[in-house]
Amino acid sequence: MKQIALGIDIGGTNTAFGLIDEDGTLLFETSLPTKSYEIPENLVDAIYALLKDRPDFNQLIGIGIGAPNGNVFTGNIEFAPNLIWKGVVPIVQLFQDTFKVPAVLANDANAAAIGEHLFGSAKDLKDFVTITLGTGLGSGIFINGELLVGHNGFAGEYGHIRVIQNGRTCGCGRNGCLETYASSTGVVRSIAEFESPNKYKSALLRKDHVNAQEVFNEAEAGDVFASEIVEYTAAVLGSALADFAAFSDPKAYILFGGIAQAGVPFAERVQFHLEANALKIFQQKIEVRVSALHDKNAAVLGTAASLFWHLHKNSVN
Amino acid sequence: MKQIALGIDIGGTNTAFGLIDEDGTLLFETSLPTKSYEIPENLVDAIYALLKDRPDFNQLIGIGIGAPNGNVFTGNIEFAPNLIWKGVVPIVQLFQDTFKVPAVLANDANAAAIGEHLFGSAKDLKDFVTITLGTGLGSGIFINGELLVGHNGFAGEYGHIRVIQNGRTCGCGRNGCLETYASSTGVVRSIAEFESPNKYKSALLRKDHVNAQEVFNEAEAGDVFASEIVEYTAAVLGSALADFAAFSDPKAYILFGGIAQAGVPFAERVQFHLEANALKIFQQKIEVRVSALHDKNAAVLGTAASLFWHLHKNSVN
Repeated sequence: MKQIALGIDIGGTNTAFGLIDEDGTLLFETSLPTKSYEIPENLVDAIYALLKDRPDFNQLIGIGIGAPNGNVFTGNIEFAPNLIWKGVVPIVQLFQDTFKVPAVLANDANAAAIGEHLFGSAKDLKDFVTITLGTGLGSGIFINGELLVGHNGFAGEYGHIRVIQNGRTCGCGRNGCLETYASSTGVVRSIAEFESPNKYKSALLRKDHVNAQEVFNEAEAGDVFASEIVEYTAAVLGSALADFAAFSDPKAYILFGGIAQAGVPFAERVQFHLEANALKIFQQKIEVRVSALHDKNAAVLGTAASLFWHLHKNSVN
Repeated sequence: MKQIALGIDIGGTNTAFGLIDEDGTLLFETSLPTKSYEIPENLVDAIYALLKDRPDFNQLIGIGIGAPNGNVFTGNIEFAPNLIWKGVVPIVQLFQDTFKVPAVLANDANAAAIGEHLFGSAKDLKDFVTITLGTGLGSGIFINGELLVGHNGFAGEYGHIRVIQNGRTCGCGRNGCLETYASSTGVVRSIAEFESPNKYKSALLRKDHVNAQEVFNEAEAGDVFASEIVEYTAAVLGSALADFAAFSDPKAYILFGGIAQAGVPFAERVQFHLEANALKIFQQKIEVRVSALHDKNAAVLGTAASLFWHLHKNSVN
């Protein structure tokens, strides 16, 4: 019988969770409204109640949890502004007490990298970097088959490497960070901040609220300014990834997230700009791949994958 | 009895070599004029002749070799323009045949990192990056006590990460690479390219040929323009190292090379600019240390350290 992990992605609005077997097959998935549970114990109980009578429940070997302000070292959620639970929540302990199996708290960028390695586009790779293009830009680094964690647990913050001098202001208080350009937020900022003679003919300027997906849709429909934004985003990202190759010398970058998965062309343009900017020793050696995981359940897969990864590491070491 | 390694640094002009024990003590050191040996076998024989009658020769367990255009995978010197030996030279094989002990070819940036880890300023560290400021800028990365090699063996090319947009032209064919600013060559370029109202009063402009060391000496003697160049160099380097922390989250950077070791103040200025530019999660967490190895024999120590490291890795794995 196959081993099963429970992957849980706690968000401010919803908590998605699912059961994954060791091949990455999603056996069950649903979500609950986080805010409806006044104390975290109630959410834990509600998830337990939904799963405990399944015939495969005895195959459950552990739980991977993703949460805002989760401290992977302590297993606690710490002062999360987007949750109604205040202060320090010992979330790993709560799940372990109820489910009687090991639980781990997973960093979302690292969970994405582990998910790609176990179940996605990086199954065949030992040296790769995942780039998650969401509200910000997250990255997870594998080196020689091992996840890079770093001295303080903060390795792989590629979104906050500055790539444009005196560039866009970033939430971190500095300027020109990669994620102010290469992220869904960055794409939307480009509508106001990218200059082009084609700008004022664009459909994008006639809309009230535009999200990054619409920019990509308009580009595909032939809007010249929208296409320029897509190309600019690919150029900034590709040029940055060319330079970042000088860190870990990866075999591939795996792009994940709505805009990266909008279609193959974006990844192709990133690859083009990576090649155009790469040091000679890195030219034609680095692939840009699109994630094989789907946006909808990637967080659940990633957190479950983190649990498998954690147990496997502890059994071999 | 202690084990001994022979470290050899083959240069276009001279070949320095020495015997190092496992504590890093230099037992013997000398050099031979590379160009005087028409074929590499003759240099190997000359080194052998100088060492074979030493009482400690039977403690020799191996040889670490640094060489221009050395291919660490094949153990060959390949088409080195600065050597009189043409084509492919199986240098590892030649030393092994004569000395009857294992030999390895070492990458100089990696040898520096291993040297610092075994014998220098990084003895107590598992996560650090060495920055060698010479003609260019070399870097060697340790992660969790392991040297980072990379998928193709090219990890840690920090000198060729572009840090100034449309900046100085680099030998690699691109612009703004870190080493065009932070290296002895970069410091000399700053004399012509750094603009300041204090420039034309500077002693530096009244000299015919100025090297980086003289810029540092003039700065120490109170020359304002020279001080500005030193500060500018520290600012570009510190700012870059702040961003690069987002890759491996190191505990420390170790600065090596003439200008880095000119005195504590340069490292202090690099630390200042690193702090001023670091993402919050990295602030006050990363040390900037000065190498404890001396310029004169660092290459010999590093190549010998590489041999110890290599044999140790192969015995534990």
